[in-house]
Amino acid sequence: MNTKIIRYILGHVLRIEAAFMMLPFIIGLFDHERLTFIFLFVALGAFLLSILLTFKKPDDMVFYLKEGCVATAASWILMSIVGALPFCISGTIPSFTDALFETISGFTTTGASILNDVEAMPRCYLFWRSFTHWIGGMGVLVFLLAVVPLSGGSHINLMRAESPGPSVGKFVPKVRHTARILYLIYFFLTGIEVILLMFGGMGFLDSTMTSFATAGTGGFGIKNDSFMSFTPYSQWVVAIFMIMFGMNFNIYYLLLFRQFKKAFSIEEIHYYLLIIVGAIAIIFFNIKDMFTTPFEAMTHTVFQVSSIISSTGFSSADFNLWPNVCKVVLVILMFVGACAGSTGGGIKVTRLVVLIKTIGKELKNYIHPKRVSKVKMDGKPVEHEVVRAINVFFITFMIIFFTSILLISIENYDFATNFSAVLATMNNIGPGLNLVGPTSNFSFFNHFSKYVLMFDMLAGRLELFPLLILFHPGLYIDTVKSKMHRRANKQND
Amino acid sequence: MNTKIIRYILGHVLRIEAAFMMLPFIIGLFDHERLTFIFLFVALGAFLLSILLTFKKPDDMVFYLKEGCVATAASWILMSIVGALPFCISGTIPSFTDALFETISGFTTTGASILNDVEAMPRCYLFWRSFTHWIGGMGVLVFLLAVVPLSGGSHINLMRAESPGPSVGKFVPKVRHTARILYLIYFFLTGIEVILLMFGGMGFLDSTMTSFATAGTGGFGIKNDSFMSFTPYSQWVVAIFMIMFGMNFNIYYLLLFRQFKKAFSIEEIHYYLLIIVGAIAIIFFNIKDMFTTPFEAMTHTVFQVSSIISSTGFSSADFNLWPNVCKVVLVILMFVGACAGSTGGGIKVTRLVVLIKTIGKELKNYIHPKRVSKVKMDGKPVEHEVVRAINVFFITFMIIFFTSILLISIENYDFATNFSAVLATMNNIGPGLNLVGPTSNFSFFNHFSKYVLMFDMLAGRLELFPLLILFHPGLYIDTVKSKMHRRANKQND
Repeated sequence: MNTKIIRYILGHVLRIEAAFMMLPFIIGLFDHERLTFIFLFVALGAFLLSILLTFKKPDDMVFYLKEGCVATAASWILMSIVGALPFCISGTIPSFTDALFETISGFTTTGASILNDVEAMPRCYLFWRSFTHWIGGMGVLVFLLAVVPLSGGSHINLMRAESPGPSVGKFVPKVRHTARILYLIYFFLTGIEVILLMFGGMGFLDSTMTSFATAGTGGFGIKNDSFMSFTPYSQWVVAIFMIMFGMNFNIYYLLLFRQFKKAFSIEEIHYYLLIIVGAIAIIFFNIKDMFTTPFEAMTHTVFQVSSIISSTGFSSADFNLWPNVCKVVLVILMFVGACAGSTGGGIKVTRLVVLIKTIGKELKNYIHPKRVSKVKMDGKPVEHEVVRAINVFFITFMIIFFTSILLISIENYDFATNFSAVLATMNNIGPGLNLVGPTSNFSFFNHFSKYVLMFDMLAGRLELFPLLILFHPGLYIDTVKSKMHRRANKQND
Repeated sequence: MNTKIIRYILGHVLRIEAAFMMLPFIIGLFDHERLTFIFLFVALGAFLLSILLTFKKPDDMVFYLKEGCVATAASWILMSIVGALPFCISGTIPSFTDALFETISGFTTTGASILNDVEAMPRCYLFWRSFTHWIGGMGVLVFLLAVVPLSGGSHINLMRAESPGPSVGKFVPKVRHTARILYLIYFFLTGIEVILLMFGGMGFLDSTMTSFATAGTGGFGIKNDSFMSFTPYSQWVVAIFMIMFGMNFNIYYLLLFRQFKKAFSIEEIHYYLLIIVGAIAIIFFNIKDMFTTPFEAMTHTVFQVSSIISSTGFSSADFNLWPNVCKVVLVILMFVGACAGSTGGGIKVTRLVVLIKTIGKELKNYIHPKRVSKVKMDGKPVEHEVVRAINVFFITFMIIFFTSILLISIENYDFATNFSAVLATMNNIGPGLNLVGPTSNFSFFNHFSKYVLMFDMLAGRLELFPLLILFHPGLYIDTVKSKMHRRANKQND
């Protein structure tokens, strides 16, 4: 394994993070907040470390999928640790575990919080918390690709390891160019949301933080009651943007290049919208009598459905109190998740559509064993290798899922709490049911459970395998072996 | 589709069921139970219908996987309807839906009951109830194979559709001979259990009924408290037999032919035992202080673990009151299920082992992309087609699973109840958690939910696809088309 290039990448990631930290620092200066200087110190520390790590450029700049995965997983972990330091040092979140949980939850765009009183936090810290969503949403490494030149296939392997969903291949080979365009779209949509929210009377900073959390499909609220006290206007704006950020970004890319017909015929987006409409119909029918007007019921239904399917996790109402069938619909939406190539989490619509089509194919195969048929998406046959990868993903997902439930159930909370806590973290949603419902938070778990859930958040965001291979002994055995081999070769020379 | 042969098979199945009904009838005669004559009438009716159905032997006796699946699914449904009639007519279970639920639960060896007072039922009805487990355990069609001559490939396609697990292929081609040996082993083991239970002081009929429920890994108890009031001796005997009936019957087949080395090296059984030991260790550690002696705690632990993993569903204690981590272990065991080629339900150990090995292979693939490795079981590489079928099975399982939860949650019971009700029926276990826990039953669900759960029981027992294709429109369209085609050809002649 090319460990030098991983070190080099980590250095660059740290430098970017240090730069990002300047934003909350400046906001803190405006607010005359003394604690804001902690951002400056941490950023300086990160910058110095980054210089050490990137001082010597590696001779060999080429790297493969393995290095891509390790670099990605290590970047996210390092970034989270450094990002947690300001909370921890300032005492806004005194426990390091809690600070790390909050930061991982931020970067992975989960939005599961351990804070009991969000509003008590200084604005610059609240800003940093929401900002992590926005950074994590598009992926730090995709950002890196846009600014740091790397050689050859490296881009693809990094982007493949970090981007949500199985359909990144489409943009290759002009990865760097594409990364820039994606960031532009991301910027542009966020900006529009800020303007629309301000138009509804929300302050600039509040609008920005809310838009960050929407764009990253994160879900950290800036109020203790998440989105319950906002105006219906703001709720509708955010609901629509949540749906939009849950869409495959291909659509915006194609729209940008005026390929309208192609843009509107993306099959995944059709299914995504179909699922949303179906979920809204079921939930609205079941809760319409719980609110004073049908409009109010519809507002909460649309808000909650788009919040959950996009894996944002804002809540405009306490769905824990809704009929069980609504809760099950939301649980299913949590599994489904957003589109591939969006900022959202979950299993992804495209994977599920392929899986369901595979079942249809299997049944047809029983009836006509001699007819050979292939699963198709967007009119094109899906490669066998893609179907296989999706199968493996789904199975790995389920195994990690139930293992995590087992591990956190040692604490002896009820099944629905454990089940939905893992569900909400692994799919990067935020709130779950019962004790981790929309009006509560994750602070009551012990440290062990919190680390399990942190693992789940990272595993979900990085789509399992880049994180898992960090735990495969083969990785280290081989690295040590090849080092010893090289050393032996040198002595022989 | 060859509908004539399906009719012919259904006729034979009915005749076998009529014959089986003579057993409870005779027991009722001994008990001077007037209601026993209902068995005679129903059996006579079934016999007459069977004569009508088998009167004309089909010209074309060959059939394919499609016919195998349809014949199997239709047989199980017909058998359950006829089997439910005595309960319904006698008024022992007045509602037809409930009677059908109980009978499907019996034949599919689930053991989920709607009866509040088992002990109030006349003995002959109790016997029929337990007997359905024994009949369903080995499969009615496998029995049919042993007694009715069919042509060529038909056997394989029938057996493949009905036998639990993906490994039936091994016994082919001498299917008929094998079916007989399997039934012999089944008979023999059941007999041993009856003797051992009687040795512990249990009456003959009680021992027989208990052994039927163990052999079929069913779980219908003959007491209202399932197995709680039995002696530790009986509990240990049943626990050990539950583990044995959950093993791949290959082991007994090989032992019978003195292939000891091969018998003891079946990989699936190693993993099965390993999971059992692991589950016992975790649960014992967590409940050891809840009982007066460690022996008592161990008895309940071993009993419960073997009851759940073998998908029997007897309970010696109310595990609903155990710590949550124990419940999660049991939930995971419910998913895992018994070995393929046993009488047990669940996803099956062999499938999970292959799935987990696939994940390992995937990770290795990230680290060494150029090395080609194949998943192995019992030292032999697993065919690509088998891996694919297991993947599709797992995904279909999960989709039916969550759809069922959604459907029964319309009734608004809590999540753990709905989740575990589907889990316990689809894996043919019996009891679940909360409202469907070991001290309660399924009677409180409404008719709609009961039909959903009946579907799940059948889907689980028939391993999904044979039942699912009944709902595929392609099946009927094609049959109608080919009939019209034949008619058109005749007119042209």
